Amino acid sequence: MKSEIIAVGSEMLTPFRQDTNSLYITGKLNEIGVTVAFKSIVGDRRKDLVSAIRTALGRADIVVLMGGLGPTEDDLTREAVAEALSLSLRRDDAQVAHLHARAATWRMPMPENNLKQADVLETAAVLSNPNGSAPGQWLDTTYDGYRKLIMLVPGPPNECRPLFDNECLPRLRAVLPPRFIARRTLRAAMIPESQADKLLAPIYTTYTDVETTILAHAGDIQLILLCTKADLQAAQRRVDELAGRMEEALDDWLYSSDGETLEQIVLYYLGLRQATLAVAESCTGGMVSQRITAIPGSSRSFLGGAVVYSDPLKTAFANVPPELIAQHGAVSAEVASAMADGIRRRTGATLGLGVTGIAGPTGGTEEKPVGLVHFAVSDGQKTTTYSRTFRGDRERVRQWATQQALDLVRRKLM
Amino acid sequence: MKSEIIAVGSEMLTPFRQDTNSLYITGKLNEIGVTVAFKSIVGDRRKDLVSAIRTALGRADIVVLMGGLGPTEDDLTREAVAEALSLSLRRDDAQVAHLHARAATWRMPMPENNLKQADVLETAAVLSNPNGSAPGQWLDTTYDGYRKLIMLVPGPPNECRPLFDNECLPRLRAVLPPRFIARRTLRAAMIPESQADKLLAPIYTTYTDVETTILAHAGDIQLILLCTKADLQAAQRRVDELAGRMEEALDDWLYSSDGETLEQIVLYYLGLRQATLAVAESCTGGMVSQRITAIPGSSRSFLGGAVVYSDPLKTAFANVPPELIAQHGAVSAEVASAMADGIRRRTGATLGLGVTGIAGPTGGTEEKPVGLVHFAVSDGQKTTTYSRTFRGDRERVRQWATQQALDLVRRKLM
Repeated sequence: MKSEIIAVGSEMLTPFRQDTNSLYITGKLNEIGVTVAFKSIVGDRRKDLVSAIRTALGRADIVVLMGGLGPTEDDLTREAVAEALSLSLRRDDAQVAHLHARAATWRMPMPENNLKQADVLETAAVLSNPNGSAPGQWLDTTYDGYRKLIMLVPGPPNECRPLFDNECLPRLRAVLPPRFIARRTLRAAMIPESQADKLLAPIYTTYTDVETTILAHAGDIQLILLCTKADLQAAQRRVDELAGRMEEALDDWLYSSDGETLEQIVLYYLGLRQATLAVAESCTGGMVSQRITAIPGSSRSFLGGAVVYSDPLKTAFANVPPELIAQHGAVSAEVASAMADGIRRRTGATLGLGVTGIAGPTGGTEEKPVGLVHFAVSDGQKTTTYSRTFRGDRERVRQWATQQALDLVRRKLM
Repeated sequence: MKSEIIAVGSEMLTPFRQDTNSLYITGKLNEIGVTVAFKSIVGDRRKDLVSAIRTALGRADIVVLMGGLGPTEDDLTREAVAEALSLSLRRDDAQVAHLHARAATWRMPMPENNLKQADVLETAAVLSNPNGSAPGQWLDTTYDGYRKLIMLVPGPPNECRPLFDNECLPRLRAVLPPRFIARRTLRAAMIPESQADKLLAPIYTTYTDVETTILAHAGDIQLILLCTKADLQAAQRRVDELAGRMEEALDDWLYSSDGETLEQIVLYYLGLRQATLAVAESCTGGMVSQRITAIPGSSRSFLGGAVVYSDPLKTAFANVPPELIAQHGAVSAEVASAMADGIRRRTGATLGLGVTGIAGPTGGTEEKPVGLVHFAVSDGQKTTTYSRTFRGDRERVRQWATQQALDLVRRKLM
């Protein structure tokens, strides 16, 4: 079954706003075996909308329209679908009551205008939208002699997504042949994308019934395995078998077998070992701390740390001897080691992490180029150091260095 | 002039990837007076592509096709445009030479396949692509009796954007009536979007020749003013006049008159006052430091700070007396003040910032709910405190708190 998603709204034809609902809906459609063949973005002009809807009906079996269901004059999706299909609109009493009830709850007046949100296509099923004022609509109809399923869903993500899940998906499932989906997400850190693909392509290409997607970002590789079958267990077996072979090939590059983030895995290992972590960051300027503290409950294992951006702070907060900085420079393996061990001692943490480098765009030398970052992880017994020169701009260097730092902590804990 | 942008590539019809080039190109087209009436996303199927191209030619004067110009069998944009317009392709000798030269530079073999990137539409101008292997193409032609401008540009952003700027824009300018654009971006912090609009709508709606866009995100409001005229100075005058009136209305909510970020402004004021800043963050977990250190050269005014996630670290790094924490709790105005003043003393900074709160999702009480954050800024003379309860999930609370913290530092410096 081929589908088309139409996002309605002139704001999405500006340089400033982008449709994001369609990614969500695409994922949900794929899970029930529906591919998205086209996406269209159309402004709030009735003529354009009618043309886009007719085009979609001419090339897709399922058409999802998002947005344009509000109360303003610019909200024309209802009217455009009615015109494209030569249907009329009727005012739905239950929806009128819903609008009055909402206005009463919010103690707001109810302009006449607003009632247009209760207009539904004569043959449509009305889809309740508890998070907003305009309902969704479901139309099972024919166009040019072919059966078409048409859904109208509101644009705001907090209305669109639950309504699609609760109202559209069950209706689609009832109409489409039964399909079950199994999936797994594996994640690996710091392995070059080309190397990952070289390792894995010979494996996953032999699983023609499992769809493998590789996403790479700043030292993080996600492998998304998806298998759709009429039998859920059979689908799960295939995904698990492929995942097992990929895990083996990735060896210790792999950090997660079920989609967890690197910071979640670091916290998981810390919890398992009843260990705590503290960090002394220079060039990453708080990014390591920020990623860890983004995880609820991180305070159980993460004590905190210091952003020792200036040299005196490296001494004040991480006990780095000023002579060491004078001798080797702030960006050196020696200072990274001292930072890791110093922050560990100062905080009483089990593990200390030190990161110091040159994020750029200036400050590089021939000997110490922009992008050079030194890392150290200390457990009191042994300090492990690592260094690497990352390419790219300041933001990229900092993102890669943060990922590398977290991965070194993970490896220390393994 | 109406345009349509077609993004070509099956990966953009998955839940994982989104076209982003079109936002960039939309901005550039708008600047020369071209509106984008439709955007389409099509997979790598020739039939779908031909249909999408014909649809676009039927409703737009200018069609920009992005992607599908590479060497693989899935790269079909050239062939689809040729079919849609009944044109033939020719192999361009200069491009064949370019491909051989690139392969030689990279010391790579040159598969026969690759040469297909040198195929251009018989009547197209070839647009040089110094950052990649496939050239762009420019076609000034007719379709159904109407003049159409068609551009084929490569998909990778680092190829697409410079090629569009350097090759497509000058050609479009030569064809379109002359237009000059003036613009300004004002930014304001922590003013509710509805309040900003209430203040500003009576002003900007009277400037019908200036397009005002309001973008709001996590306590940051951007006001983008754009005016297009045949005379640049006249356009600039209108934008500056409107900007002046908006600046006045926004009063000290406004922090930037020309698009600078809040952290840039904070660093600017610190530099101006020859002052330095250090921060002690608890619930924001490094996000304040991270935003500041993202700016090149921030090390001149930002000393660093401490992520004092645990109570003992609040004492160890920010001199917060344990009794104070015991008496008032870690999330209190008293502790925020002590953190601000403590980190200032410990680092010798001119200003100290303290942030402590409950990011959630758990840890809230009736008295101290999730989202409650206490802030303090100390300059040694006086400690200014502020507290607010932010709504939303952990990520949202942390983002708003970070913005609020930076804004308090700005206000202290003003």
